[in-house]
Amino acid sequence: MCSPDVMHRVALEVSRRKALIATGAAAFTAVGPLSRATSAQEATPLAENPAFPGFSTIVDLTHTWGPDFPVFFRATSPTFEVLATVEVDFFFKMILQYDEHVGTHLDAPAHFAADGLTADLLPVTSFFAPLCIIDISSRAAEDADALGLLEDIEAFEAEYGPIEPGSFVALNSGWDATVEEPGAYINLDADDVQHYPGWSAEAAAALVERGIVGAGVDTASLDYGMSTDFAAHLTFLPAGVFGVEGLANLGDVPVSGAHIIIGAPKHEGASGGPSRIFAVY
Amino acid sequence: MCSPDVMHRVALEVSRRKALIATGAAAFTAVGPLSRATSAQEATPLAENPAFPGFSTIVDLTHTWGPDFPVFFRATSPTFEVLATVEVDFFFKMILQYDEHVGTHLDAPAHFAADGLTADLLPVTSFFAPLCIIDISSRAAEDADALGLLEDIEAFEAEYGPIEPGSFVALNSGWDATVEEPGAYINLDADDVQHYPGWSAEAAAALVERGIVGAGVDTASLDYGMSTDFAAHLTFLPAGVFGVEGLANLGDVPVSGAHIIIGAPKHEGASGGPSRIFAVY
Repeated sequence: MCSPDVMHRVALEVSRRKALIATGAAAFTAVGPLSRATSAQEATPLAENPAFPGFSTIVDLTHTWGPDFPVFFRATSPTFEVLATVEVDFFFKMILQYDEHVGTHLDAPAHFAADGLTADLLPVTSFFAPLCIIDISSRAAEDADALGLLEDIEAFEAEYGPIEPGSFVALNSGWDATVEEPGAYINLDADDVQHYPGWSAEAAAALVERGIVGAGVDTASLDYGMSTDFAAHLTFLPAGVFGVEGLANLGDVPVSGAHIIIGAPKHEGASGGPSRIFAVY
Repeated sequence: MCSPDVMHRVALEVSRRKALIATGAAAFTAVGPLSRATSAQEATPLAENPAFPGFSTIVDLTHTWGPDFPVFFRATSPTFEVLATVEVDFFFKMILQYDEHVGTHLDAPAHFAADGLTADLLPVTSFFAPLCIIDISSRAAEDADALGLLEDIEAFEAEYGPIEPGSFVALNSGWDATVEEPGAYINLDADDVQHYPGWSAEAAAALVERGIVGAGVDTASLDYGMSTDFAAHLTFLPAGVFGVEGLANLGDVPVSGAHIIIGAPKHEGASGGPSRIFAVY
Protein backbone atom coordinates (compact mmCIF):
# COMPACT_ATOMS: atom_id res chain seq x y z
CA MET A 1 0.00 0.00 0.00
CA CYS A 2 1.35 3.41 -0.87
CA SER A 3 -0.42 5.05 2.06
CA PRO A 4 -3.40 4.19 4.24
CA ASP A 5 -4.91 7.43 5.47
CA VAL A 6 -8.42 8.73 5.31
CA MET A 7 -7.91 11.21 2.47
CA HIS A 8 -6.41 8.41 0.48
CA ARG A 9 -9.40 6.14 1.04
CA VAL A 10 -11.74 8.90 -0.07
CA ALA A 11 -9.65 9.50 -3.18
CA LEU A 12 -9.59 5.77 -3.87
CA GLU A 13 -13.37 5.49 -3.65
CA VAL A 14 -13.93 8.49 -5.89
CA SER A 15 -11.33 7.24 -8.33
CA ARG A 16 -12.84 3.74 -8.32
CA ARG A 17 -16.31 5.09 -9.11
CA LYS A 18 -14.84 7.19 -11.90
CA ALA A 19 -13.06 4.17 -13.34
CA LEU A 20 -16.26 2.16 -13.46
CA ILE A 21 -18.22 5.02 -14.97
CA ALA A 22 -15.46 5.82 -17.44
CA THR A 23 -15.39 2.34 -18.89
CA GLY A 24 -19.10 1.69 -18.58
CA ALA A 25 -18.34 -1.68 -17.00
CA ALA A 26 -21.40 -3.47 -15.69
CA ALA A 27 -21.37 -5.92 -12.79
CA PHE A 28 -19.59 -9.06 -13.91
CA THR A 29 -21.89 -12.01 -14.12
CA ALA A 30 -20.85 -14.05 -17.16
CA VAL A 31 -18.36 -16.50 -15.71
CA GLY A 32 -19.02 -19.37 -18.11
CA PRO A 33 -17.58 -20.17 -21.52
CA LEU A 34 -16.86 -17.28 -23.86
CA SER A 35 -18.18 -16.57 -27.31
CA ARG A 36 -17.04 -14.17 -29.99
CA ALA A 37 -19.83 -11.84 -28.81
CA THR A 38 -18.05 -11.27 -25.49
CA SER A 39 -15.46 -8.55 -25.91
CA ALA A 40 -12.55 -7.60 -23.67
CA GLN A 41 -13.29 -4.95 -21.07
CA GLU A 42 -10.79 -2.59 -19.53
CA ALA A 43 -12.00 -2.16 -15.94
CA THR A 44 -14.07 -5.04 -14.76
CA PRO A 45 -15.56 -5.48 -11.31
CA LEU A 46 -15.08 -9.02 -10.04
CA ALA A 47 -17.64 -8.73 -7.26
CA GLU A 48 -19.85 -11.46 -8.67
CA ASN A 49 -17.04 -13.69 -9.87
CA PRO A 50 -16.54 -16.66 -7.55
CA ALA A 51 -14.53 -15.12 -4.75
CA PHE A 52 -11.23 -14.01 -6.19
CA PRO A 53 -9.49 -13.04 -2.99
CA GLY A 54 -8.39 -9.56 -2.01
CA PHE A 55 -9.67 -7.31 -4.77
CA SER A 56 -12.78 -6.70 -6.78
CA THR A 57 -11.74 -4.82 -9.92
CA ILE A 58 -9.23 -5.53 -12.67
CA VAL A 59 -7.91 -2.94 -15.10
CA ASP A 60 -6.03 -4.24 -18.14
CA LEU A 61 -2.92 -2.07 -18.49
CA THR A 62 -1.94 -3.77 -21.77
CA HIS A 63 -2.27 -2.48 -25.33
CA THR A 64 -3.25 -4.87 -28.09
CA TRP A 65 -0.22 -4.89 -30.39
CA GLY A 66 0.59 -6.06 -33.89
CA PRO A 67 2.45 -5.16 -37.08
CA ASP A 68 1.10 -1.59 -36.97
CA PHE A 69 1.86 -0.84 -33.33
CA PRO A 70 4.16 2.22 -33.17
CA VAL A 71 7.75 1.35 -32.25
CA PHE A 72 10.73 3.35 -30.99
CA PHE A 73 12.28 5.42 -33.79
CA ARG A 74 14.14 3.17 -36.27
CA ALA A 75 13.23 -0.07 -34.44
CA THR A 76 11.84 -2.94 -36.52
CA SER A 77 8.07 -3.48 -36.64
CA PRO A 78 6.65 -6.96 -35.91
CA THR A 79 5.55 -9.31 -38.66
CA PHE A 80 2.88 -11.99 -38.25
CA GLU A 81 2.58 -14.85 -40.71
CA VAL A 82 -0.51 -17.08 -40.79
CA LEU A 83 0.77 -20.66 -40.90
CA ALA A 84 -2.56 -22.48 -40.94
CA THR A 85 -6.27 -21.68 -40.91
CA VAL A 86 -9.24 -23.56 -39.50
CA GLU A 87 -10.93 -23.49 -42.91
CA VAL A 88 -8.04 -25.11 -44.77
CA ASP A 89 -5.93 -26.84 -42.13
CA PHE A 90 -8.34 -27.70 -39.33
CA PHE A 91 -6.56 -25.30 -36.93
CA PHE A 92 -5.32 -21.70 -36.98
CA LYS A 93 -1.91 -20.46 -35.93
CA MET A 94 0.71 -17.84 -36.75
CA ILE A 95 4.45 -17.38 -36.63
CA LEU A 96 5.44 -14.10 -34.99
CA GLN A 97 8.63 -12.15 -35.49
CA TYR A 98 9.37 -9.09 -33.41
CA ASP A 99 11.89 -6.96 -31.58
CA GLU A 100 11.36 -7.66 -27.86
CA HIS A 101 10.65 -3.98 -27.20
CA VAL A 102 7.19 -3.61 -28.72
CA GLY A 103 3.72 -3.01 -27.32
CA THR A 104 3.28 -2.95 -23.55
CA HIS A 105 6.58 -4.52 -22.64
CA LEU A 106 9.14 -5.13 -19.95
CA ASP A 107 12.70 -3.77 -19.93
CA ALA A 108 14.81 -6.18 -17.89
CA PRO A 109 17.87 -4.82 -16.07
CA ALA A 110 19.98 -6.71 -18.68
CA HIS A 111 18.60 -4.41 -21.39
CA PHE A 112 21.03 -1.70 -20.23
CA ALA A 113 23.34 -3.48 -17.77
CA ALA A 114 25.80 -6.19 -18.77
CA ASP A 115 25.48 -7.80 -15.33
CA GLY A 116 21.74 -7.17 -14.97
CA LEU A 117 19.07 -9.86 -14.65
CA THR A 118 17.29 -11.00 -17.79
CA ALA A 119 13.48 -11.02 -17.59
CA ASP A 120 13.25 -14.80 -17.15
CA LEU A 121 15.32 -14.57 -13.96
CA LEU A 122 13.43 -11.78 -12.19
CA PRO A 123 11.83 -13.02 -8.93
CA VAL A 124 8.10 -13.60 -9.27
CA THR A 125 7.43 -11.57 -6.13
CA SER A 126 8.56 -8.45 -7.98
CA PHE A 127 5.62 -9.01 -10.37
CA PHE A 128 3.07 -8.49 -7.56
CA ALA A 129 3.56 -5.01 -6.19
CA PRO A 130 1.77 -2.01 -4.69
CA LEU A 131 1.15 0.43 -7.54
CA CYS A 132 1.74 4.19 -7.22
CA ILE A 133 0.77 6.37 -10.19
CA ILE A 134 2.35 9.78 -10.75
CA ASP A 135 -0.08 11.71 -12.94
CA ILE A 136 1.43 14.39 -15.19
CA SER A 137 -1.25 14.10 -17.85
CA SER A 138 -2.45 17.72 -17.62
CA ARG A 139 1.12 19.00 -18.07
CA ALA A 140 1.83 16.49 -20.86
CA ALA A 141 -1.31 17.62 -22.72
CA GLU A 142 0.37 21.03 -23.09
CA ASP A 143 3.96 19.84 -23.53
CA ALA A 144 4.97 16.64 -25.31
CA ASP A 145 8.42 16.89 -23.72
CA ALA A 146 7.06 16.91 -20.16
CA LEU A 147 9.06 14.96 -17.59
CA GLY A 148 8.07 13.09 -14.45
CA LEU A 149 10.03 15.17 -11.94
CA LEU A 150 11.31 14.79 -8.39
CA GLU A 151 8.72 17.45 -7.42
CA ASP A 152 5.95 15.20 -8.78
CA ILE A 153 7.15 12.36 -6.56
CA GLU A 154 7.36 14.65 -3.56
CA ALA A 155 3.86 16.00 -4.22
CA PHE A 156 2.54 12.43 -4.48
CA GLU A 157 4.17 11.50 -1.18
CA ALA A 158 2.85 14.63 0.54
CA GLU A 159 -0.66 13.55 -0.40
CA TYR A 160 -0.50 9.75 -0.11
CA GLY A 161 2.49 9.03 2.11
CA PRO A 162 5.92 7.59 1.34
CA ILE A 163 6.45 5.34 -1.67
CA GLU A 164 7.42 2.09 0.03
CA PRO A 165 10.20 -0.34 -0.91
CA GLY A 166 8.85 -3.02 -3.23
CA SER A 167 6.41 -0.68 -4.97
CA PHE A 168 5.97 -0.24 -8.71
CA VAL A 169 5.72 3.42 -9.77
CA ALA A 170 4.07 4.35 -13.07
CA LEU A 171 4.07 7.70 -14.85
CA ASN A 172 0.68 8.54 -16.31
CA SER A 173 1.10 11.14 -19.05
CA GLY A 174 -2.11 10.24 -20.87
CA TRP A 175 0.05 9.15 -23.81
CA ASP A 176 -1.64 5.74 -24.14
CA ALA A 177 -4.48 7.34 -26.11
CA THR A 178 -2.05 8.37 -28.88
CA VAL A 179 -1.45 4.81 -30.14
CA GLU A 180 -4.63 5.13 -32.20
CA GLU A 181 -3.43 8.27 -34.06
CA PRO A 182 -0.85 7.57 -36.75
CA GLY A 183 2.47 9.17 -35.81
CA ALA A 184 1.28 10.61 -32.50
CA TYR A 185 2.82 8.03 -30.15
CA ILE A 186 6.39 8.41 -31.39
CA ASN A 187 5.73 12.01 -32.48
CA LEU A 188 8.75 12.72 -34.67
CA ASP A 189 9.51 16.32 -35.57
CA ALA A 190 10.96 17.53 -38.90
CA ASP A 191 14.44 16.63 -37.64
CA ASP A 192 13.44 13.06 -36.72
CA VAL A 193 13.55 13.84 -33.02
CA GLN A 194 10.94 11.99 -30.92
CA HIS A 195 8.67 13.97 -28.57
CA TYR A 196 6.88 12.21 -25.74
CA PRO A 197 7.09 12.25 -21.93
CA GLY A 198 9.35 10.16 -19.68
CA TRP A 199 11.08 10.14 -16.31
CA SER A 200 13.73 12.74 -15.42
CA ALA A 201 17.11 11.44 -14.23
CA GLU A 202 16.51 13.06 -10.84
CA ALA A 203 13.09 11.41 -10.43
CA ALA A 204 14.56 8.05 -11.44
CA ALA A 205 17.32 8.41 -8.84
CA ALA A 206 14.76 9.27 -6.14
CA LEU A 207 12.69 6.19 -7.02
CA VAL A 208 15.75 3.93 -6.96
CA GLU A 209 16.58 5.36 -3.54
CA ARG A 210 13.09 4.41 -2.32
CA GLY A 211 13.74 0.77 -3.23
CA ILE A 212 11.04 0.32 -5.86
CA VAL A 213 11.05 -2.92 -7.89
CA GLY A 214 9.90 -1.43 -11.18
CA ALA A 215 9.09 1.81 -12.98
CA GLY A 216 6.55 2.32 -15.74
CA VAL A 217 5.60 4.77 -18.45
CA ASP A 218 2.70 4.98 -20.89
CA THR A 219 5.08 6.08 -23.68
CA ALA A 220 7.61 4.19 -25.79
CA SER A 221 10.50 4.79 -23.39
CA LEU A 222 11.40 5.34 -19.74
CA ASP A 223 13.32 8.34 -21.08
CA TYR A 224 11.46 11.17 -22.77
CA GLY A 225 11.59 11.16 -26.57
CA MET A 226 14.21 13.89 -26.88
CA SER A 227 16.69 12.05 -24.65
CA THR A 228 20.13 11.41 -26.05
CA ASP A 229 21.73 10.15 -22.82
CA PHE A 230 19.06 7.61 -21.72
CA ALA A 231 19.55 8.83 -18.17
CA ALA A 232 16.37 7.24 -16.83
CA HIS A 233 17.20 3.83 -18.32
CA LEU A 234 20.74 4.13 -16.99
CA THR A 235 19.51 5.04 -13.53
CA PHE A 236 16.82 2.38 -13.18
CA LEU A 237 18.16 -0.71 -14.96
CA PRO A 238 21.74 -0.97 -13.66
CA ALA A 239 20.25 -0.48 -10.16
CA GLY A 240 18.16 -3.63 -10.71
CA VAL A 241 14.85 -1.77 -11.16
CA PHE A 242 13.03 -3.15 -14.19
CA GLY A 243 10.99 -0.97 -16.53
CA VAL A 244 7.62 -1.33 -18.21
CA GLU A 245 6.97 0.79 -21.28
CA GLY A 246 3.74 1.37 -23.17
CA LEU A 247 1.31 0.96 -20.26
CA ALA A 248 -2.36 1.58 -21.08
CA ASN A 249 -5.37 2.73 -19.03
CA LEU A 250 -3.44 4.10 -16.04
CA GLY A 251 -6.10 6.81 -15.84
CA ASP A 252 -8.66 4.14 -14.90
CA VAL A 253 -6.74 3.14 -11.75
CA PRO A 254 -6.65 4.86 -8.34
CA VAL A 255 -3.27 6.62 -8.08
CA SER A 256 -2.66 5.02 -4.69
CA GLY A 257 -3.94 1.81 -3.12
CA ALA A 258 -4.07 -0.45 -6.19
CA HIS A 259 -1.64 -3.28 -6.96
CA ILE A 260 0.02 -4.31 -10.21
CA ILE A 261 0.41 -7.86 -11.53
CA ILE A 262 3.03 -8.23 -14.25
CA GLY A 263 2.77 -11.18 -16.63
CA ALA A 264 6.39 -10.84 -17.66
CA PRO A 265 7.95 -12.76 -20.55
CA LYS A 266 9.90 -15.90 -19.63
CA HIS A 267 11.94 -16.68 -22.69
CA GLU A 268 15.61 -17.48 -22.11
CA GLY A 269 17.90 -14.51 -21.75
CA ALA A 270 15.12 -11.98 -22.40
CA SER A 271 16.16 -8.33 -22.55
CA GLY A 272 12.44 -7.80 -22.05
CA GLY A 273 9.34 -8.40 -24.11
CA PRO A 274 5.58 -8.00 -24.47
CA SER A 275 3.87 -8.58 -21.14
CA ARG A 276 0.30 -8.89 -19.92
CA ILE A 277 -0.18 -6.40 -17.13
CA PHE A 278 -3.11 -5.85 -14.80
CA ALA A 279 -3.94 -3.40 -12.03
CA VAL A 280 -6.22 -4.76 -9.31
CA TYR A 281 -7.99 -2.99 -6.46
CA MET B 1 -13.14 -21.69 -4.44
CA CYS B 2 -13.67 -25.24 -5.57
CA SER B 3 -15.09 -26.27 -2.20
CA PRO B 4 -14.99 -24.83 1.30
CA ASP B 5 -15.34 -27.71 3.75
CA VAL B 6 -13.21 -28.73 6.66
CA MET B 7 -11.46 -31.66 4.99
CA HIS B 8 -10.53 -29.35 2.18
CA ARG B 9 -9.02 -26.77 4.53
CA VAL B 10 -6.93 -29.46 6.19
CA ALA B 11 -5.78 -30.73 2.79
CA LEU B 12 -4.94 -27.18 1.72
CA GLU B 13 -2.82 -26.54 4.80
CA VAL B 14 -0.96 -29.82 4.43
CA SER B 15 -0.47 -29.20 0.75
CA ARG B 16 0.74 -25.65 1.36
CA ARG B 17 3.34 -26.80 3.87
CA LYS B 18 4.50 -29.45 1.43
CA ALA B 19 4.83 -26.87 -1.33
CA LEU B 20 7.01 -24.64 0.81
CA ILE B 21 9.15 -27.53 1.97
CA ALA B 22 9.41 -28.93 -1.54
CA THR B 23 10.79 -25.74 -3.00
CA GLY B 24 12.82 -24.76 0.01
CA ALA B 25 11.41 -21.24 -0.18
CA ALA B 26 12.34 -19.05 2.75
CA ALA B 27 10.23 -16.16 4.04
CA PHE B 28 10.36 -13.39 1.48
CA THR B 29 12.11 -10.31 2.74
CA ALA B 30 14.04 -8.79 -0.16
CA VAL B 31 11.56 -6.37 -1.67
CA GLY B 32 14.05 -3.85 -3.00
CA PRO B 33 15.94 -3.70 -6.29
CA LEU B 34 17.15 -6.94 -7.77
CA SER B 35 20.64 -8.07 -8.64
CA ARG B 36 21.93 -10.92 -10.75
CA ALA B 37 22.49 -12.82 -7.51
CA THR B 38 18.72 -13.03 -6.90
CA SER B 39 17.31 -15.96 -8.81
CA ALA B 40 13.72 -16.80 -9.66
CA GLN B 41 11.88 -18.95 -7.14
CA GLU B 42 8.99 -21.24 -7.85
CA ALA B 43 6.83 -21.03 -4.73
CA THR B 44 7.32 -17.83 -2.84
CA PRO B 45 5.51 -16.77 0.31
CA LEU B 46 4.51 -13.12 0.15
CA ALA B 47 3.85 -12.80 3.87
CA GLU B 48 6.50 -10.14 4.40
CA ASN B 49 5.94 -8.36 1.10
CA PRO B 50 4.01 -5.13 1.59
CA ALA B 51 0.45 -6.35 1.90
CA PHE B 52 -0.50 -7.90 -1.40
CA PRO B 53 -4.16 -8.51 -0.76
CA GLY B 54 -5.88 -11.86 -0.53
CA PHE B 55 -3.10 -14.40 -0.79
CA SER B 56 0.34 -15.08 0.58
CA THR B 57 2.07 -17.51 -1.80
CA ILE B 58 2.79 -17.40 -5.52
CA VAL B 59 3.74 -20.44 -7.62
CA ASP B 60 5.11 -19.74 -11.09
CA LEU B 61 3.36 -22.17 -13.46
CA THR B 62 5.50 -21.06 -16.40
CA HIS B 63 8.43 -22.84 -18.04
CA THR B 64 11.39 -20.84 -19.25
CA TRP B 65 11.40 -21.40 -23.02
CA GLY B 66 13.78 -20.83 -25.90
CA PRO B 67 15.11 -22.34 -29.12
CA ASP B 68 15.58 -25.74 -27.45
CA PHE B 69 12.17 -25.99 -25.79
CA PRO B 70 10.43 -29.15 -27.06
CA VAL B 71 7.60 -28.43 -29.51
CA PHE B 72 4.66 -30.44 -30.83
CA PHE B 73 5.80 -33.02 -33.39
CA ARG B 74 6.80 -31.30 -36.67
CA ALA B 75 6.14 -27.77 -35.35
CA THR B 76 8.85 -25.16 -35.91
CA SER B 77 11.24 -24.34 -33.07
CA PRO B 78 11.79 -20.71 -32.03
CA THR B 79 14.81 -18.72 -33.14
CA PHE B 80 16.29 -15.81 -31.17
CA GLU B 81 18.65 -13.34 -32.81
CA VAL B 82 20.73 -10.93 -30.75
CA LEU B 83 20.33 -7.52 -32.36
CA ALA B 84 22.50 -5.48 -30.02
CA THR B 85 24.65 -5.98 -26.92
CA VAL B 86 25.47 -3.69 -24.01
CA GLU B 87 29.18 -4.16 -24.67
CA VAL B 88 29.04 -3.06 -28.32
CA ASP B 89 25.82 -1.12 -28.70
CA PHE B 90 25.10 0.34 -25.25
CA PHE B 91 21.94 -1.78 -24.91
CA PHE B 92 20.96 -5.44 -25.37
CA LYS B 93 17.97 -6.76 -27.28
CA MET B 94 16.86 -9.66 -29.45
CA ILE B 95 14.47 -10.37 -32.28
CA LEU B 96 12.33 -13.44 -31.60
CA GLN B 97 10.66 -15.67 -34.15
CA TYR B 98 8.33 -18.43 -33.05
CA ASP B 99 5.21 -20.44 -33.64
CA GLU B 100 2.61 -19.15 -31.15
CA HIS B 101 2.24 -22.64 -29.64
CA VAL B 102 5.51 -22.96 -27.73
CA GLY B 103 6.43 -23.07 -24.06
CA THR B 104 3.71 -22.54 -21.48
CA HIS B 105 1.11 -21.10 -23.81
CA LEU B 106 -2.53 -20.28 -24.35
CA ASP B 107 -4.79 -21.89 -26.96
CA ALA B 108 -7.51 -19.36 -27.80
CA PRO B 109 -10.89 -20.66 -28.95
CA ALA B 110 -9.94 -19.36 -32.44
CA HIS B 111 -7.13 -21.93 -32.60
CA PHE B 112 -9.72 -24.61 -33.44
CA ALA B 113 -12.94 -22.65 -34.08
CA ALA B 114 -13.42 -20.33 -37.05
CA ASP B 115 -15.84 -18.20 -35.01
CA GLY B 116 -13.92 -18.48 -31.74
CA LEU B 117 -12.36 -15.58 -29.85
CA THR B 118 -8.70 -14.80 -30.44
CA ALA B 119 -6.58 -14.46 -27.28
CA ASP B 120 -6.49 -10.65 -27.42
CA LEU B 121 -10.30 -10.55 -27.15
CA LEU B 122 -10.77 -12.89 -24.19
CA PRO B 123 -12.31 -11.07 -21.19
CA VAL B 124 -9.74 -10.25 -18.51
CA THR B 125 -11.99 -11.71 -15.83
CA SER B 126 -11.44 -15.16 -17.35
CA PHE B 127 -7.74 -14.76 -16.51
CA PHE B 128 -8.45 -14.65 -12.74
CA ALA B 129 -10.10 -17.91 -11.80
CA PRO B 130 -10.44 -20.51 -9.06
CA LEU B 131 -7.99 -23.30 -9.86
CA CYS B 132 -8.87 -26.99 -9.58
CA ILE B 133 -6.10 -29.51 -10.21
CA ILE B 134 -6.85 -33.09 -11.29
CA ASP B 135 -3.80 -35.14 -10.36
CA ILE B 136 -3.12 -38.23 -12.48
CA SER B 137 0.63 -38.16 -11.95
CA SER B 138 0.90 -41.58 -10.32
CA ARG B 139 -1.00 -43.19 -13.24
CA ALA B 140 0.99 -41.20 -15.82
CA ALA B 141 4.26 -42.34 -14.26
CA GLU B 142 3.28 -45.89 -15.29
CA ASP B 143 1.56 -45.05 -18.59
CA ALA B 144 2.60 -42.22 -20.91
CA ASP B 145 -0.75 -42.50 -22.69
CA ALA B 146 -2.75 -41.87 -19.49
CA LEU B 147 -5.86 -39.72 -19.88
CA GLY B 148 -7.62 -37.34 -17.53
CA LEU B 149 -10.95 -39.16 -17.28
CA LEU B 150 -14.50 -38.36 -16.27
CA GLU B 151 -13.92 -40.63 -13.26
CA ASP B 152 -11.01 -38.41 -12.18
CA ILE B 153 -13.28 -35.37 -12.27
CA GLU B 154 -15.96 -37.18 -10.32
CA ALA B 155 -13.42 -38.35 -7.73
CA PHE B 156 -12.16 -34.77 -7.37
CA GLU B 157 -15.68 -33.47 -6.87
CA ALA B 158 -16.49 -36.21 -4.35
CA GLU B 159 -13.55 -35.02 -2.27
CA TYR B 160 -13.59 -31.24 -2.79
CA GLY B 161 -17.11 -30.40 -3.97
CA PRO B 162 -18.45 -29.37 -7.37
CA ILE B 163 -16.20 -27.64 -9.90
CA GLU B 164 -17.90 -24.26 -10.15
CA PRO B 165 -18.63 -22.24 -13.29
CA GLY B 166 -15.79 -19.82 -13.98
CA SER B 167 -13.11 -22.21 -12.69
CA PHE B 168 -9.92 -23.18 -14.47
CA VAL B 169 -9.19 -26.93 -14.35
CA ALA B 170 -5.64 -28.21 -14.84
CA LEU B 171 -4.49 -31.78 -15.39
CA ASN B 172 -1.34 -32.58 -13.41
CA SER B 173 0.38 -35.58 -14.98
CA GLY B 174 3.82 -34.72 -13.64
CA TRP B 175 4.93 -34.26 -17.25
CA ASP B 176 6.49 -30.82 -16.61
CA ALA B 177 9.65 -32.48 -15.29
CA THR B 178 10.30 -34.10 -18.67
CA VAL B 179 11.20 -30.83 -20.43
CA GLU B 180 14.73 -31.21 -19.09
CA GLU B 181 15.25 -34.68 -20.64
CA PRO B 182 15.90 -34.59 -24.38
CA GLY B 183 13.03 -36.28 -26.22
CA ALA B 184 11.00 -37.10 -23.11
CA TYR B 185 8.39 -34.32 -23.34
CA ILE B 186 7.19 -35.16 -26.86
CA ASN B 187 8.19 -38.81 -26.40
CA LEU B 188 8.07 -40.08 -30.00
CA ASP B 189 8.05 -43.83 -30.60
CA ALA B 190 9.74 -45.59 -33.53
CA ASP B 191 6.71 -44.80 -35.71
CA ASP B 192 6.85 -41.06 -34.89
CA VAL B 193 3.78 -41.29 -32.69
CA GLN B 194 3.81 -38.96 -29.66
CA HIS B 195 3.16 -40.38 -26.18
CA TYR B 196 2.14 -38.06 -23.33
CA PRO B 197 -1.02 -37.56 -21.26
CA GLY B 198 -4.01 -35.34 -22.05
CA TRP B 199 -7.75 -34.94 -21.44
CA SER B 200 -10.22 -37.56 -22.64
CA ALA B 201 -13.10 -36.36 -24.81
CA GLU B 202 -15.55 -37.39 -22.11
CA ALA B 203 -13.71 -35.46 -19.40
CA ALA B 204 -13.53 -32.40 -21.67
CA ALA B 205 -17.28 -32.58 -22.28
CA ALA B 206 -17.95 -32.82 -18.53
CA LEU B 207 -15.78 -29.77 -17.86
CA VAL B 208 -17.51 -27.76 -20.61
CA GLU B 209 -20.81 -28.72 -19.02
CA ARG B 210 -19.63 -27.33 -15.67
CA GLY B 211 -19.02 -23.94 -17.28
CA ILE B 212 -15.26 -23.68 -16.75
CA VAL B 213 -13.42 -20.78 -18.44
CA GLY B 214 -10.23 -22.66 -19.23
CA ALA B 215 -8.56 -26.08 -19.16
CA GLY B 216 -4.87 -26.81 -18.70
CA VAL B 217 -2.33 -29.55 -19.16
CA ASP B 218 1.35 -29.91 -18.27
CA THR B 219 2.05 -31.58 -21.62
CA ALA B 220 2.33 -30.23 -25.17
CA SER B 221 -1.36 -30.69 -25.97
CA LEU B 222 -4.84 -30.74 -24.43
CA ASP B 223 -5.17 -34.05 -26.30
CA TYR B 224 -2.91 -36.95 -25.40
CA GLY B 225 0.03 -37.52 -27.73
CA MET B 226 -1.50 -40.46 -29.60
CA SER B 227 -4.64 -38.50 -30.52
CA THR B 228 -5.55 -38.34 -34.18
CA ASP B 229 -8.98 -36.73 -33.74
CA PHE B 230 -8.06 -33.85 -31.37
CA ALA B 231 -11.25 -34.57 -29.47
CA ALA B 232 -10.28 -32.55 -26.37
CA HIS B 233 -9.35 -29.48 -28.45
CA LEU B 234 -12.56 -29.85 -30.43
CA THR B 235 -14.64 -30.13 -27.28
CA PHE B 236 -13.09 -27.25 -25.33
CA LEU B 237 -12.25 -24.57 -27.90
CA PRO B 238 -15.42 -24.40 -30.02
CA ALA B 239 -17.35 -24.24 -26.71
CA GLY B 240 -15.41 -21.06 -25.84
CA VAL B 241 -13.20 -22.70 -23.21
CA PHE B 242 -9.59 -21.66 -23.74
CA GLY B 243 -6.68 -24.01 -23.17
CA VAL B 244 -3.29 -23.66 -21.54
CA GLU B 245 -0.61 -26.16 -22.51
CA GLY B 246 2.80 -26.77 -20.98
CA LEU B 247 1.98 -25.74 -17.39
CA ALA B 248 4.79 -26.20 -14.85
CA ASN B 249 4.90 -26.80 -11.10
CA LEU B 250 1.26 -27.86 -10.66
CA GLY B 251 2.50 -30.30 -8.03
CA ASP B 252 3.49 -27.33 -5.83
CA VAL B 253 -0.09 -25.99 -5.67
CA PRO B 254 -2.98 -27.19 -3.46
CA VAL B 255 -5.35 -29.13 -5.73
CA SER B 256 -8.30 -27.10 -4.47
CA GLY B 257 -8.53 -23.61 -3.01
CA ALA B 258 -5.84 -21.83 -5.05
CA HIS B 259 -6.49 -19.34 -7.87
CA ILE B 260 -4.81 -18.93 -11.24
CA ILE B 261 -3.74 -15.67 -12.87
CA ILE B 262 -3.13 -15.90 -16.61
CA GLY B 263 -0.88 -13.32 -18.24
CA ALA B 264 -2.26 -14.11 -21.69
CA PRO B 265 -0.75 -12.78 -24.91
CA LYS B 266 -2.42 -9.69 -26.37
CA HIS B 267 -1.17 -9.54 -29.93
CA GLU B 268 -3.78 -8.92 -32.62
CA GLY B 269 -5.68 -11.97 -33.78
CA ALA B 270 -3.66 -14.35 -31.57
CA SER B 271 -4.46 -18.05 -31.93
CA GLY B 272 -2.65 -18.23 -28.60
CA GLY B 273 0.90 -17.71 -27.45
CA PRO B 274 3.42 -17.88 -24.62
CA SER B 275 1.85 -16.67 -21.38
CA ARG B 276 3.06 -15.92 -17.88
CA ILE B 277 0.95 -17.90 -15.48
CA PHE B 278 0.81 -17.88 -11.69
CA ALA B 279 -1.06 -19.82 -9.04
CA VAL B 280 -1.75 -17.89 -5.83
CA TYR B 281 -3.09 -19.07 -2.47
